[in-house]
Amino acid sequence: MSVKRKKISVIGSGFTGATTAFLIAQKELGDVVLVDIPDMENPTKGKALDMAEAAPVLGFDAKVTGTSDYRETANSDMVIITAGMARKPGMSRDELVQTNQKIMKAVTTEVVKYSPDTTFLVLTNPVDAMTYTVFRESGFPKERVIGQSGVLDTARFRTFVAEELNLSVKDITGFVLGGHGDDMVPLVRYSYAGGIPLETLLSPERLEAIVDRTRKGGAEIVNLLGNGSAYYAPAASLAEMAEAILKDQKRVIPSIAYLEGEYGLDGIYLGVPTVLGANGIEKIIELELTPDEEESFKKSAESVRNVMNVLE
Amino acid sequence: MSVKRKKISVIGSGFTGATTAFLIAQKELGDVVLVDIPDMENPTKGKALDMAEAAPVLGFDAKVTGTSDYRETANSDMVIITAGMARKPGMSRDELVQTNQKIMKAVTTEVVKYSPDTTFLVLTNPVDAMTYTVFRESGFPKERVIGQSGVLDTARFRTFVAEELNLSVKDITGFVLGGHGDDMVPLVRYSYAGGIPLETLLSPERLEAIVDRTRKGGAEIVNLLGNGSAYYAPAASLAEMAEAILKDQKRVIPSIAYLEGEYGLDGIYLGVPTVLGANGIEKIIELELTPDEEESFKKSAESVRNVMNVLE
Amino acid sequence: MSVKRKKISVIGSGFTGATTAFLIAQKELGDVVLVDIPDMENPTKGKALDMAEAAPVLGFDAKVTGTSDYRETANSDMVIITAGMARKPGMSRDELVQTNQKIMKAVTTEVVKYSPDTTFLVLTNPVDAMTYTVFRESGFPKERVIGQSGVLDTARFRTFVAEELNLSVKDITGFVLGGHGDDMVPLVRYSYAGGIPLETLLSPERLEAIVDRTRKGGAEIVNLLGNGSAYYAPAASLAEMAEAILKDQKRVIPSIAYLEGEYGLDGIYLGVPTVLGANGIEKIIELELTPDEEESFKKSAESVRNVMNVLE
Amino acid sequence: MSVKRKKISVIGSGFTGATTAFLIAQKELGDVVLVDIPDMENPTKGKALDMAEAAPVLGFDAKVTGTSDYRETANSDMVIITAGMARKPGMSRDELVQTNQKIMKAVTTEVVKYSPDTTFLVLTNPVDAMTYTVFRESGFPKERVIGQSGVLDTARFRTFVAEELNLSVKDITGFVLGGHGDDMVPLVRYSYAGGIPLETLLSPERLEAIVDRTRKGGAEIVNLLGNGSAYYAPAASLAEMAEAILKDQKRVIPSIAYLEGEYGLDGIYLGVPTVLGANGIEKIIELELTPDEEESFKKSAESVRNVMNVLE
Repeated sequence: MSVKRKKISVIGSGFTGATTAFLIAQKELGDVVLVDIPDMENPTKGKALDMAEAAPVLGFDAKVTGTSDYRETANSDMVIITAGMARKPGMSRDELVQTNQKIMKAVTTEVVKYSPDTTFLVLTNPVDAMTYTVFRESGFPKERVIGQSGVLDTARFRTFVAEELNLSVKDITGFVLGGHGDDMVPLVRYSYAGGIPLETLLSPERLEAIVDRTRKGGAEIVNLLGNGSAYYAPAASLAEMAEAILKDQKRVIPSIAYLEGEYGLDGIYLGVPTVLGANGIEKIIELELTPDEEESFKKSAESVRNVMNVLE
Repeated sequence: MSVKRKKISVIGSGFTGATTAFLIAQKELGDVVLVDIPDMENPTKGKALDMAEAAPVLGFDAKVTGTSDYRETANSDMVIITAGMARKPGMSRDELVQTNQKIMKAVTTEVVKYSPDTTFLVLTNPVDAMTYTVFRESGFPKERVIGQSGVLDTARFRTFVAEELNLSVKDITGFVLGGHGDDMVPLVRYSYAGGIPLETLLSPERLEAIVDRTRKGGAEIVNLLGNGSAYYAPAASLAEMAEAILKDQKRVIPSIAYLEGEYGLDGIYLGVPTVLGANGIEKIIELELTPDEEESFKKSAESVRNVMNVLE
Repeated sequence: MSVKRKKISVIGSGFTGATTAFLIAQKELGDVVLVDIPDMENPTKGKALDMAEAAPVLGFDAKVTGTSDYRETANSDMVIITAGMARKPGMSRDELVQTNQKIMKAVTTEVVKYSPDTTFLVLTNPVDAMTYTVFRESGFPKERVIGQSGVLDTARFRTFVAEELNLSVKDITGFVLGGHGDDMVPLVRYSYAGGIPLETLLSPERLEAIVDRTRKGGAEIVNLLGNGSAYYAPAASLAEMAEAILKDQKRVIPSIAYLEGEYGLDGIYLGVPTVLGANGIEKIIELELTPDEEESFKKSAESVRNVMNVLE
Repeated sequence: MSVKRKKISVIGSGFTGATTAFLIAQKELGDVVLVDIPDMENPTKGKALDMAEAAPVLGFDAKVTGTSDYRETANSDMVIITAGMARKPGMSRDELVQTNQKIMKAVTTEVVKYSPDTTFLVLTNPVDAMTYTVFRESGFPKERVIGQSGVLDTARFRTFVAEELNLSVKDITGFVLGGHGDDMVPLVRYSYAGGIPLETLLSPERLEAIVDRTRKGGAEIVNLLGNGSAYYAPAASLAEMAEAILKDQKRVIPSIAYLEGEYGLDGIYLGVPTVLGANGIEKIIELELTPDEEESFKKSAESVRNVMNVLE
């Protein structure tokens, strides 16, 4: 009877990757391997060592190591991809997509070589197209290639609502479909405070303002930081999805999933409600949409298709 | 009967300050105010907002806000100082000491104005002299001005021993006195694995190598990172000390404490075993030292005095 | 700046009282005093000592003591009443009500003598009438005398739904109003899986069966145990309410609250959605009910009034 | 890549068994099957259901079920035996040993039939002889049949010391060898407060009194309860050992282990310091004993041999 520790590899040792590694170690989900390119090997080792040195104080038993050698990721139970470039001044969107596509391909090839049975979680933007790239490149079954966006989008929405109503974040829920950020399709009618529909607690104007702030939530942080983008909430979102899968929790969590007919779409990765468990995406939950929601969802899909068209 | 949430202010929104704020919020020790200078106000607000947006996902109820206005720190139960400059190329040690002394004085004045009954935790280097500066500037009783170094030093020691013996970090303990890093006085005879003295489990050479690595533990991370210094383990150390005090746990934890006769020293802040509880340092535990240890301890004190002499 | 540990007294050292004390200690909400009558003093001390001896292993810092002397409860931040008689064969309902009323009065008098500013949480059945008794006897403001029933009823509902749908309990929510058990008014339209209304995931027949099982959830356990009644889930429910108040979390939690006009009722304790924070019940949330729900709610109120009429 | 939830079966649904099941579920170590004899099937199902109904409130994802059918324990990763009789008035010690031996044999046969690769943790008294019985009956390798006594004995010791010194239980450690309770061999010189030897903090008289109280710690609870024996601290001890193994933590924990030459003993189960990890007892740590300690240890071994002689 094997009760070996699980192994999670996090690709990309930037702030989001490092914070994700740290949260996963704190949760004792397994040992963590933080991976980056050879040029970043030392800083990656440095961050990993610093985290490892926090373990005795915070009381977690999980090895955290840094490397640029994919052989150390061998037999990972989960691989989380945070690597990728942020858009630089003067760079077109298409250049960004193609640059990150190349990174996804390279990472996927290396990962699959050593962990042919793992499950991928993808964060890199544009996340729908990047998750699709990992899916194609890995040849993995669709349920084991999953993108993150809805957990983060709803986390922001929940934070803003909790603050507005002065209530615990634990009791606020949100619900989104479709793409990340601008392309997000909020289902406010499925969002609650202690089970009470938010529509009965907040005016349409306030709700609309909060939805709008959520849509631009990533940019709000980018503008405040001046240099860099959000990483605490994105990392927390990845850690929650990882926990759901690694502990086989059957959580109902929005994921970027590969659609084959669901919601009338085919051959596209898009945000939908899913059940996450030991087998990755164990189910896509289909909802009846109002005509308005359906239109927004189709528009979100179009927007993702536009990005996919840029893929080589 | 007041059961209001506690309030903790963290001064300095760099990596260590931000990570400390995050850990304290995760532990639900109270609401957290992250403070930096006006020039850094927006990034500080950005980090705080990003952390707040992680709360619904990680499930903690704690407000995290960023500011450059000390009025928002009013009535803090604890103030943690991480602000300060790192040594820059070409800067003499004395310049560093005097620069950080100025920062300590400015921060302390502002804090005390709005939180005259708080407890200080100081991390800024050189930490013994900086804690002394806060003590003098605040006019606070000595038990409410406390420096951090021993938790971090022993955390590193414990990590290295656990790795060497392939044992859980939970069962390894370490023990240090004196100053931070180079000036650290390790009491290996008071260090154990599951209660078993390490001296019976490791050769003197291996132990010495681990002690030496611990001593240089900060530099090891600095060298690996290339740019910046450790923050995960330092933040975890601060969060543990904060928890011990805010939850009145009576933990036996090494602190930088003001000595008035203990260990034959007077009028100096130095690392010693303490009991941390609601009243800050509730007790300094005095140990009989071997002649060798005593000599090292005196040398450590001298080294701290040398830095204190640079203070204006 | 006081950061003293909080103090929680649990009256009644039976299974529910003891388990509540244990969960509160595990959560490090404060020190716990377990209280029972003089005849039960030794077993009460025994349980408290046994719990205290679990602390080093489970890693919680909270004193747990047992006593029959109310002086030891002095200055409690919260008092949780679980004391009371279970219905015995041959005992009429009215006899039970009057017996437990006497116990509530005696307990309240003693508690108030030593903790005039505390907050009461009441579990003893029939809970609506017993909470009312504590309210009257204490002379406390209504927001500091609170009864438990909805957390437990929804916990059972959530368990049954999670099992039926094979989903995580973390993502299932339920919603009830009115009295406990038989008198429970379920608002299924406010009950969700991952935010998706249960009515779209389960057939009306299955939902009705689950509601019915929930209503009889206490009896189901009583019948299985053969001797005694449920205590794990009731204790967990009390501990969650205590945490919400002692940590000032502003949780949206169903409580038995004193109504003065809300929901068209006056001078009666009944289950309604509330916000729990430092001040106890900080808000009663009023919902628009459907005619059917309103009728059930009135019937539930009548049923509680019938019990109240038996009070002396 | 399988990330299935682990499965832990707890045999015996009395207070200790039930509390162990509850703690293991709270820790999300895996799904829990609580097992008792057919006559107790309903109460066992009732306790399991009550625990399951606490899951949504406490926020743990773990199935808890009750049964008398060993087929439901199939493929358990760990089996914890708490079943057995307590000594009744008029029963000789030998009768007790033989009764519980029969129970161990019956339980082991059933367990092994369905979980041939599991790891056993045994609590039933007299625990050294009962662990030996399970070892013989199962034919399992010695590292996968483990008894509990030292975690509990040191937990009591640590509690008493923490109370005496008014320090956190987190910083007190204890160390015992040999049998349980009366036969316990305390190694006070390996017991510390924050790493400081207790011998320097407490007088020999106080230490001796605490050791004596620890030795009689089980009886102290029995006498207070009047009816029944301790279960919170024993359950916590089992849960910690289970966690160490199921999470492969390499914890240094005292276990009742099968000795084959260690400490000069052969063919006997006795309490010694061990490393617990994925493979059960991964190492027995041998210490040099003082002549006094050695004598006590031999006496403890004799006492266990006397019980073993009663085994059929």
